[in-house]
Amino acid sequence: MPDKAGHVDIDLERSAERIDHDVQSLTGSDYTLSAEAIRRYAYRPEYRATLDYFTHAWQELGFTVSEDPVGNFVARNRPPGEPVFGVGSHCDSNRNGGRWDGTLGVVCALEVCRASAEHGLDLPLQAISFLEEEGSGFGQMVLGSRIVAGRVSEQELREQIHAIDDGRPFWEHAQEAGYEPARWRECAHILDDLSGWIELHIEQGRVLQDTGRRLGVVSAIAGYVHGDIRITGRADHAGATPMDMRADSGVVAAETIIELERLARAAGSGTVGTVGEIEIAPGLINAIPGRTRISLDVRGPEDEAVHGVIRDIERFAQRAAAERGTKASYSQRQTVPATPMDERLVAALEAAASASGESFTTMISGAAHDTMCVAERVPAAMVFVPCRDGLSHTPEEDANPADAALGVQVILGAISAMVEPG
Amino acid sequence: MPDKAGHVDIDLERSAERIDHDVQSLTGSDYTLSAEAIRRYAYRPEYRATLDYFTHAWQELGFTVSEDPVGNFVARNRPPGEPVFGVGSHCDSNRNGGRWDGTLGVVCALEVCRASAEHGLDLPLQAISFLEEEGSGFGQMVLGSRIVAGRVSEQELREQIHAIDDGRPFWEHAQEAGYEPARWRECAHILDDLSGWIELHIEQGRVLQDTGRRLGVVSAIAGYVHGDIRITGRADHAGATPMDMRADSGVVAAETIIELERLARAAGSGTVGTVGEIEIAPGLINAIPGRTRISLDVRGPEDEAVHGVIRDIERFAQRAAAERGTKASYSQRQTVPATPMDERLVAALEAAASASGESFTTMISGAAHDTMCVAERVPAAMVFVPCRDGLSHTPEEDANPADAALGVQVILGAISAMVEPG
Repeated sequence: MPDKAGHVDIDLERSAERIDHDVQSLTGSDYTLSAEAIRRYAYRPEYRATLDYFTHAWQELGFTVSEDPVGNFVARNRPPGEPVFGVGSHCDSNRNGGRWDGTLGVVCALEVCRASAEHGLDLPLQAISFLEEEGSGFGQMVLGSRIVAGRVSEQELREQIHAIDDGRPFWEHAQEAGYEPARWRECAHILDDLSGWIELHIEQGRVLQDTGRRLGVVSAIAGYVHGDIRITGRADHAGATPMDMRADSGVVAAETIIELERLARAAGSGTVGTVGEIEIAPGLINAIPGRTRISLDVRGPEDEAVHGVIRDIERFAQRAAAERGTKASYSQRQTVPATPMDERLVAALEAAASASGESFTTMISGAAHDTMCVAERVPAAMVFVPCRDGLSHTPEEDANPADAALGVQVILGAISAMVEPG
Repeated sequence: MPDKAGHVDIDLERSAERIDHDVQSLTGSDYTLSAEAIRRYAYRPEYRATLDYFTHAWQELGFTVSEDPVGNFVARNRPPGEPVFGVGSHCDSNRNGGRWDGTLGVVCALEVCRASAEHGLDLPLQAISFLEEEGSGFGQMVLGSRIVAGRVSEQELREQIHAIDDGRPFWEHAQEAGYEPARWRECAHILDDLSGWIELHIEQGRVLQDTGRRLGVVSAIAGYVHGDIRITGRADHAGATPMDMRADSGVVAAETIIELERLARAAGSGTVGTVGEIEIAPGLINAIPGRTRISLDVRGPEDEAVHGVIRDIERFAQRAAAERGTKASYSQRQTVPATPMDERLVAALEAAASASGESFTTMISGAAHDTMCVAERVPAAMVFVPCRDGLSHTPEEDANPADAALGVQVILGAISAMVEPG
């Protein structure tokens, strides 16, 4: 029983041991296609084995386990129609993944359920493990939760989304794995009974590590714009073209890279801007770059700031290009608005974290998560735990089960406060 | 006969027609491996056919034709031991080459010999077509003339230089083509009797076109340094890493690219600096660049200025890297000193060009040429003709046979002045 609003004491050491055991067990050869990295994608035997592992574990706790028509995993301890509080994440991996990303959130959801029973809280709970968050099987990120949120079309599922490995449609793979993709609209119902939702995840950044915090309470998931700036100049001979006769697209790109950094800093409130791809043609040591493409990744919790940076960098690039006899054009690949977390739930997590006496911070998630799709219908929040050097999507990914156990305690405290307010 | 020192009148229209006929003939299917581009490399049937074409043409003029032990082509109208004036270039092509680069210089050497006979000048002449200038057969630029200049070792020829297409050594290919590579040191003798040397070539830049000149007299071939700057930062997540926690190697590279441009301009006297290659890792839109490599191509007629730019850009990159928590290191690939042309010969060409009444300029060659290897032993110079938009090493390469004919006239004038001074 919670000893006061927002605080639950659990046996942190035992929880850390069980979390560690689950995470390490799921690195076994049944659960990954590769011995060097975690490789686990939707509808593959390794993924099936992982769902079976969780099915067994939740059934042991007396939960009812089901999978929705495309394979999102659900475990709950109340009958359909009764309100439950949601916890979970995803257990598929990046193509060259580590053991913690996603899986830790499902393992901690399991530990929330275990600890709730063990400490006599008997909270009404529903765990979800969303399908194909990483997009490693079908090239589409947060696919399972987007299906739940109705953010994909039937045509996409039938014809446009193909397996990376064999090129065949999602639809066929889902049917072969025993699912009924034609009933995909019913996936939305897995959120019907949720009174709230909390996802625990490794941070995938270095803020918690570098500032010495054990937990992060996420107040918003950043929105982002992905786009490209293409600059067209002239690919003249590097030796035979005097400096004042050039139309060098590479120098314009360089100016734009520096300006993007300046604009993101100036925008403030957590806005970030990155050029992660540079493509240069012809790409020869002795040729002036005739064409250069740079990618833009601009994110932040305030959509206006993000779009302001994009607008300004586009103008800057065009001006800089014109000054050098080149041309610049911007094209957008994708834009996703920021997702603010539920204020009451964030406050409950902050209260529980404070009550733990451990160091934490309230922060923004720069990365995308399934919680973005849940938050549309359900009051939602996230808890981050530190990961070593901010590394993720690599076999070198590392995190501390003791931090995860602390996260479980804080989540339990917050749920207790929300379910039995006051 | 020359009507005055440095001026010879030839039938420019007839010369232009013959030049055009030769250049166009050598685009026929016997002379190129590809219908889309000129592809003609040492020891291939297309190359053999091209040498046979020139053999026939020079024999018609009464010249004695020979090939040195590796296949550099020689045609002369005086017995061995008598002084002759050298003209020529190369007739191999780039892998995706045009019809003018190199070949035009051999064709114009032939036209110099034809016109000398036709106009009763009877100048003592020796034409050379150097083997494998482009490096398209064996990946080594100016290979034939470097062998003549003794700038390669026997070990390189025997073991280290391999055909791009089949990986077998230069040595074997030379033997199979009927040459005697073991006698490669004797190749040096093809320069023994030369009292001077002039190579005509397309400019490979846009200076002549854009300034409305028909000819360029080359006063120096630029020296150059090829190198790389590698910057190592941290490949953090683009969304999850605040602007002030980054070690972004891409931004340091961008600053270095802009500084190189500034340094090259500041160095003056024709120094140029180019970043033509940018390699970025991991190269993902949502990852901060952990490692970035940029190539450096710095050239100019003054070696001190070139090396000063390299020294300064290395220092700059290290400072800029340190300011952002990254590291930069410079490594040199290759350095070649500048090759000044012979002053008397340049003056003779300028006088002949002036006498023609046509517009010309004295300029630097930013690109490397066989003449660099000849100039060590023989007073040498070059004449450039405009090429459309500075394009070379592409099937779109284009030049005007009338400009080439003017070049032939100017070369004949200069040789006349040198051979019969005053």
